[in-house]
Amino acid sequence: MGITVGLFGFGKTGSVVANEIIKSPDCELKWVVRKTKKNEGLYASHLLGHEHDEGRIYSASDTDFEGLYKENRVDVIIDFSSSGSVDEYTGAAKFGTRFVSAISNYEPGDLGRLKELSTQTAVLYSPNITLGINFLIAASKVLQKIAPQADIEIVEEHFRDKKDVSGTALRIAEDLGLDKNKCVNSVRVGGIIGKHEVIFGLQYQTIRLIHESLNRAAFGQGAIYAAQWLMKKKKGLYTMEQALAIKLG
Amino acid sequence: MGITVGLFGFGKTGSVVANEIIKSPDCELKWVVRKTKKNEGLYASHLLGHEHDEGRIYSASDTDFEGLYKENRVDVIIDFSSSGSVDEYTGAAKFGTRFVSAISNYEPGDLGRLKELSTQTAVLYSPNITLGINFLIAASKVLQKIAPQADIEIVEEHFRDKKDVSGTALRIAEDLGLDKNKCVNSVRVGGIIGKHEVIFGLQYQTIRLIHESLNRAAFGQGAIYAAQWLMKKKKGLYTMEQALAIKLG
Amino acid sequence: MGITVGLFGFGKTGSVVANEIIKSPDCELKWVVRKTKKNEGLYASHLLGHEHDEGRIYSASDTDFEGLYKENRVDVIIDFSSSGSVDEYTGAAKFGTRFVSAISNYEPGDLGRLKELSTQTAVLYSPNITLGINFLIAASKVLQKIAPQADIEIVEEHFRDKKDVSGTALRIAEDLGLDKNKCVNSVRVGGIIGKHEVIFGLQYQTIRLIHESLNRAAFGQGAIYAAQWLMKKKKGLYTMEQALAIKLG
Amino acid sequence: MGITVGLFGFGKTGSVVANEIIKSPDCELKWVVRKTKKNEGLYASHLLGHEHDEGRIYSASDTDFEGLYKENRVDVIIDFSSSGSVDEYTGAAKFGTRFVSAISNYEPGDLGRLKELSTQTAVLYSPNITLGINFLIAASKVLQKIAPQADIEIVEEHFRDKKDVSGTALRIAEDLGLDKNKCVNSVRVGGIIGKHEVIFGLQYQTIRLIHESLNRAAFGQGAIYAAQWLMKKKKGLYTMEQALAIKLG
Repeated sequence: MGITVGLFGFGKTGSVVANEIIKSPDCELKWVVRKTKKNEGLYASHLLGHEHDEGRIYSASDTDFEGLYKENRVDVIIDFSSSGSVDEYTGAAKFGTRFVSAISNYEPGDLGRLKELSTQTAVLYSPNITLGINFLIAASKVLQKIAPQADIEIVEEHFRDKKDVSGTALRIAEDLGLDKNKCVNSVRVGGIIGKHEVIFGLQYQTIRLIHESLNRAAFGQGAIYAAQWLMKKKKGLYTMEQALAIKLG
Repeated sequence: MGITVGLFGFGKTGSVVANEIIKSPDCELKWVVRKTKKNEGLYASHLLGHEHDEGRIYSASDTDFEGLYKENRVDVIIDFSSSGSVDEYTGAAKFGTRFVSAISNYEPGDLGRLKELSTQTAVLYSPNITLGINFLIAASKVLQKIAPQADIEIVEEHFRDKKDVSGTALRIAEDLGLDKNKCVNSVRVGGIIGKHEVIFGLQYQTIRLIHESLNRAAFGQGAIYAAQWLMKKKKGLYTMEQALAIKLG
Repeated sequence: MGITVGLFGFGKTGSVVANEIIKSPDCELKWVVRKTKKNEGLYASHLLGHEHDEGRIYSASDTDFEGLYKENRVDVIIDFSSSGSVDEYTGAAKFGTRFVSAISNYEPGDLGRLKELSTQTAVLYSPNITLGINFLIAASKVLQKIAPQADIEIVEEHFRDKKDVSGTALRIAEDLGLDKNKCVNSVRVGGIIGKHEVIFGLQYQTIRLIHESLNRAAFGQGAIYAAQWLMKKKKGLYTMEQALAIKLG
Repeated sequence: MGITVGLFGFGKTGSVVANEIIKSPDCELKWVVRKTKKNEGLYASHLLGHEHDEGRIYSASDTDFEGLYKENRVDVIIDFSSSGSVDEYTGAAKFGTRFVSAISNYEPGDLGRLKELSTQTAVLYSPNITLGINFLIAASKVLQKIAPQADIEIVEEHFRDKKDVSGTALRIAEDLGLDKNKCVNSVRVGGIIGKHEVIFGLQYQTIRLIHESLNRAAFGQGAIYAAQWLMKKKKGLYTMEQALAIKLG
């Protein structure tokens, strides 16, 4: 059969993620919870150009979450909405549901509640849930250990209207113990979807690790990968790096 | 026969330039003027591993410039030393000598004197005298005209100890009318000799123009190219872009 | 008001191009001619998610072209269909319509007919109608003139299922007088939309010109640019390079 | 004190490696064995511009190897010469000497003898002894495990006169189980010292691992790293990947 999934978030990224879940032969999208009332009661599948019914849309403000979690129990809830949603889905844990959160900017309190949740069930949290970015981070850490003398800088490129410095770039800098204010270079031009380059400079050689996003659907594939991996895990808080590392054994 | 050349400067870059002039079948290095007294009276050719005599070394403080310019007249003086040298070689103009200056940071007064010199003879001034960088600048200007809506940023990468922002990158920004403080990103890692990338971002496509230096000898080849081009020119102040453009006709 | 446009082709690329024309404030899409009968009589605008009526769809086999061209006269016909369509639209020339053809693989006879058409009206033909690719070709030619000693190779990257060597890469090789069989390297991996890199290798420096496609909509923007430029031209056969060069004057 | 080293090979790469060993505060170059009689009896240090005596040069044909190994015992012999040298240094094993071989193209028989040698002492063999290339290979294997669905191709770039396909690129292809004839693209232009790029293409993202050589001295640093690591190892045959991995624990 595959994994049954509930999705929080149906915005720019959320809808692309929904589409990936619908297309995946290993997953079934049972429902979607979104903030607004738009398209409430319709199926995400129809809105995304599919003919069959999959992923009924619920509006957060109108939903009896207790009933939803009980009668439409899902194996995994995937969260691409925003910081506060954690409050709405903690109740699903008692039905055995696991959680994958891809929220990029958590309020401290909400992150705390996500951690509490992991004492009841398996929770994976990754603000950058693509396979490629997580490989980039893991490989960068390894290279830094092998070549501690290397100078490291990060260049991240995104579309002109992206305001903040890439959270992923800051995360890489943090994980490598670098000064965030000095080593992250941000390029904002045109319609670049997302490129992250970690440059390791040695005296006689340069090593570059580059990740280029072609489409937001990469997030959906990362979330599905995480959900599948999480199905075999006991309660606890996990990271995407762990999910990827397990395959290296 | 080829062109006879006098060289000012015999430091890190100057000596590599001297070597290129010596190796060129189209040029003869008559003499080198350097600041210090080191190796005074020896031949640059010997110090650079050649067996024949070429490029006798003079120390600036001990040299009778009037005598040098008259008795060891050269077709072109190439300057890779520093801002003030212009005062020492203006006297060569009356013997028909032309000038190629590759000084990167001129004091305003010295630059003024170089301009005065161009009322007597042909002078080419380029702070970035490689063929590639000048092509990069020219091509960037063209692309900006074709696609004025493009966002433009520059990424320059150099060895860890290079202190300032690349003068070349600033020059590109200036030529394109960009805000120098916002659009130039500087990476300083390891032993990168020099890389400049101009990124043009459009909504649906990205264009990158990249120049990578492999060796300082590129400066020597640029200076020789400039010197050869200058031989056919009347008095006036020229740029490397003009020297390159003439071949496009 | 802007330019009125008729479009041939409503496949993968054609529909994206239609969308760009509809979105452009400078153009009005009067009609679309497609091969199949699918969605005949509907508006392209609706199929593309717009609310207003724009771009009525005609099926080639059912259409009275003489009537269409007379009663729904357009300033420019843009062709993203296939080689044979030229036969269907030559009749529009007598109503003063101009033509932009972006067909990548013309049969010799059809290309001949397109050329004949240019004795009656203004025709622009470019198999690679993006602004960026045409800049890449033009800039490459310039650099080759400046640095004839440079070795040149091309690396083109596309999605795994693209079968043939990139026509654009072959065109660049041809324009630069290179051996197509030796200097074009084709990478086929994942979902890369399209990347072309022209590498100029000199002894001491390397120059790279890179074009990356982010979205097929770039073709639509190129076609609109070409159409606008063509409005001021007399009869004759033009290229995209000419359309771009005119702005440099 | 540091490690005492004997070096086989004093050609283009060998002399650069000698220089790195001489410059390293952790190593002392006791002697160099070269094929020809050139500069026999002189010190490598002098030929490389140092003032002190280090690395006396022996000609292979004139040398009493038994005497050399006994009276000028070294901790490690580093081999950058050619396939056959292994015959000349097996005799050093009985004095406790370890071996680092960086020969890129071994004859099968010679490789066999190197393996025999590893039953007596610690031997590390790596045809690509830079830290960066070995990291590239190791990281590529990891990424392939994480993303087995990724398409993989390799682009290697070198100076125009390099004849064969890069042995390093072929090795990467082999290690990843790829078809060497299809997935390695070779660019030969200008003076590029060496660049290897492994491209992983997924449907919605691309990952690139790039290694750029700036100078052959990188080989020397890799060999010193290998020699230091080997000092703590028992007899056996080791690879550079093992030497790097040990630091990850």
